Amino acid sequence: MRMYDLIEKKKCGGILTKEEIDFMIRGYTHGDIPDYQMSAMTMAICFQGMTPQETGDLTLAMRDSGDTLDLSGIRGIKVDKHSTGGVGDKTSLTLAPLVSSVGVKVAKMSGRGLGHTGGTIDKLESIPGFSTELTMDAFISQVDRIGMAIMGQTAELAPADKKLYALRDVTATVDQMALIASSIMSKKLAAGADAIVLDVKCGSGAFMRDRKGADALAEAMVSIGKHAGKQIWAYITDMDQPLGNAVGNAIEVREAIETLKGKGPEDFRELVLTLGSRMCVFAGVAKDFDSAYALLAEQLRSGKALEQMARFVEAQGGDASYVFDETKLKIAAHTKQLKAERDGYISGIACAEVGMASLALGGGRETKADIIDPEVGIYLYKKTGDAVRAGDMLAELYYNDEKKGAEGLERLAKAYRFGDTAPEKRAIILGEVEG
Amino acid sequence: MRMYDLIEKKKCGGILTKEEIDFMIRGYTHGDIPDYQMSAMTMAICFQGMTPQETGDLTLAMRDSGDTLDLSGIRGIKVDKHSTGGVGDKTSLTLAPLVSSVGVKVAKMSGRGLGHTGGTIDKLESIPGFSTELTMDAFISQVDRIGMAIMGQTAELAPADKKLYALRDVTATVDQMALIASSIMSKKLAAGADAIVLDVKCGSGAFMRDRKGADALAEAMVSIGKHAGKQIWAYITDMDQPLGNAVGNAIEVREAIETLKGKGPEDFRELVLTLGSRMCVFAGVAKDFDSAYALLAEQLRSGKALEQMARFVEAQGGDASYVFDETKLKIAAHTKQLKAERDGYISGIACAEVGMASLALGGGRETKADIIDPEVGIYLYKKTGDAVRAGDMLAELYYNDEKKGAEGLERLAKAYRFGDTAPEKRAIILGEVEG
Repeated sequence: MRMYDLIEKKKCGGILTKEEIDFMIRGYTHGDIPDYQMSAMTMAICFQGMTPQETGDLTLAMRDSGDTLDLSGIRGIKVDKHSTGGVGDKTSLTLAPLVSSVGVKVAKMSGRGLGHTGGTIDKLESIPGFSTELTMDAFISQVDRIGMAIMGQTAELAPADKKLYALRDVTATVDQMALIASSIMSKKLAAGADAIVLDVKCGSGAFMRDRKGADALAEAMVSIGKHAGKQIWAYITDMDQPLGNAVGNAIEVREAIETLKGKGPEDFRELVLTLGSRMCVFAGVAKDFDSAYALLAEQLRSGKALEQMARFVEAQGGDASYVFDETKLKIAAHTKQLKAERDGYISGIACAEVGMASLALGGGRETKADIIDPEVGIYLYKKTGDAVRAGDMLAELYYNDEKKGAEGLERLAKAYRFGDTAPEKRAIILGEVEG
Repeated sequence: MRMYDLIEKKKCGGILTKEEIDFMIRGYTHGDIPDYQMSAMTMAICFQGMTPQETGDLTLAMRDSGDTLDLSGIRGIKVDKHSTGGVGDKTSLTLAPLVSSVGVKVAKMSGRGLGHTGGTIDKLESIPGFSTELTMDAFISQVDRIGMAIMGQTAELAPADKKLYALRDVTATVDQMALIASSIMSKKLAAGADAIVLDVKCGSGAFMRDRKGADALAEAMVSIGKHAGKQIWAYITDMDQPLGNAVGNAIEVREAIETLKGKGPEDFRELVLTLGSRMCVFAGVAKDFDSAYALLAEQLRSGKALEQMARFVEAQGGDASYVFDETKLKIAAHTKQLKAERDGYISGIACAEVGMASLALGGGRETKADIIDPEVGIYLYKKTGDAVRAGDMLAELYYNDEKKGAEGLERLAKAYRFGDTAPEKRAIILGEVEG
């Protein structure tokens, strides 16, 4: 078998067999197939696409290119959640304790990526003492015992995807649906869960700007999940404005805990309950979505979900008193306020600008070497659709460095758009793709 | 400017500017742009194509990536001929002396490529004493003095094309018309002639199998030539069977000389007269094609063209007596004959098999290190359309090594196809594209 022939085949619109895809991914991972052949292939795929069967085979080949987690030591059904990413996305922090409080097993391995804020692991580290450095054995046994654990990534999951993504990133071949879907799913499948719920963000702050793209990505990922024999379901959710009100690290943990206490922003609460209900159905802890939804809402109201969060934090060395009193989480003392310059309605909030503001404050990483300041962040008092009068506070920034604070405020000011009439409200859950 | 953006632009169907193409070719030649980005670009070009303007700009950028010959020291109009290659193509050997005998200046720099037979330089070296190792000054002065010279390639013409072709060759991006045309033309333009006549081969033995492809290639190359401000004309000529009767090195020189004597195979003679007439018109030595044709036919009949060949051979150190008696050129003494196994008509001769037979005999190069045996070759007594009876001699092979001879015969036997009725005759000149 020669890579040349596979490129030629795909260029001419042919369908690659499982054997051909395995050959290609194995060869590329080991360096036997050079970058220049793989980039010609990915460009050909951009034009000719891949069938669901090819996409599934590609995903499994990438999944099998490195370590795969063995979660068989955990009793019960392990359910994972994946979000395609957005601004203010603190979903895992609330969702994992909530669903594990009713028996869904959540075993999450997370990396520290680049972004406008830190990742789940960075956010959790706002809690004094909290550690994500677990051994694999401790991780497995904690999930089995208390229902959940979140650890830093030690295993090398889907190295072929890592290499291929880096190549696509410099050859303008990122935006191809089958390649995007297989990239995400190869890592998810390597992480070993029995069932997966996907949160596909859609809107100006998401990778998928429009509904059509988000639907297509959700469908492609669901198709891959089924190909791999997993239970899977995707929700298409709004990311035309930041999720909830808090953007940062400690400040997002505060909002996640407030939500576990039955409060929190409505959009965020609804998202967590929806994703969580599907996870419950998959895990068999509720007979259908509606009863799961009621069950989880009661867990929030009764404080059971909060107790589970405390149990989780304690198990990983954190100070659980911060869970019961989230205001103990330190937020930077210096503040700046963004005020409305006119009367009217908020017609939109540009996620990208809010993200850049958070990054400017020091809340995220531009390069791997950057150190995150967990105390900085933004609280959005007004969101899309809210009526405002000139002088009303729109948002507040928390910062430790005057220059960074000023830069953050400047970026944030560009985020808010105004109108004379109330814009149509966009629901948080825009659609779903069932598995 | 970033290569990434250029790839993205082409992928989306955009048109690259001259500045962008210059940036790309300069960067690629110098190694600033990596192979993996260039292969993504060439694959995108395979799908999106290039406009005539882009193709012209690409060609000029590649032309300017290395040396370009300065032929200004030669008085008169320098006309070059380029063939896209085929089996039995000894055209330059006859054409150059013929047209230079009436005042067309032919300054030819040739490389030693891989092939079923040697190239023009290898063939000429069948003549004792003949040397193609000229200095640039000697080359220029010889063309100025006697009207023609053929030298081995010393200058580095269009290195960008060389690098790009090698990449296309391993990434399945060879068969894109704009890339093929710019590759050929960049080298031709770097060779410095004022006018170019193209011989675009069409048929089973040519790079372009069908008429549509050959026409498109001819049009693309003519368009590039005009873009570069050159006089240019293309002929689409038959390569569904070998050209003439001789395939090899010394044996092809014999046939070229026979043709200069006013004899030689009809198809070959017609091709030479047609290409040569256009060259004469470009050089201004005849007022139109028909008068040029009559002029050249007379040069063949009168022996003037042959005298010019002798002058040329002598100028480059060769023994001119071989020109007047071409049978002095040594052909291998061992022969094998291929005979017809049935009555009927030759319905076709597969060029590829004839070429492989020549290679098997030792007449060509598979790798650069191979040494050509100038004495071996094939003479085709029967060609497409000829009536044969079982036992008639179809072709004769000349070889120096029994094993190679047997292998050559085996390959050659696969070349002939038979039918019960006479096939339609295909003209040697199939069409033309005027500049």
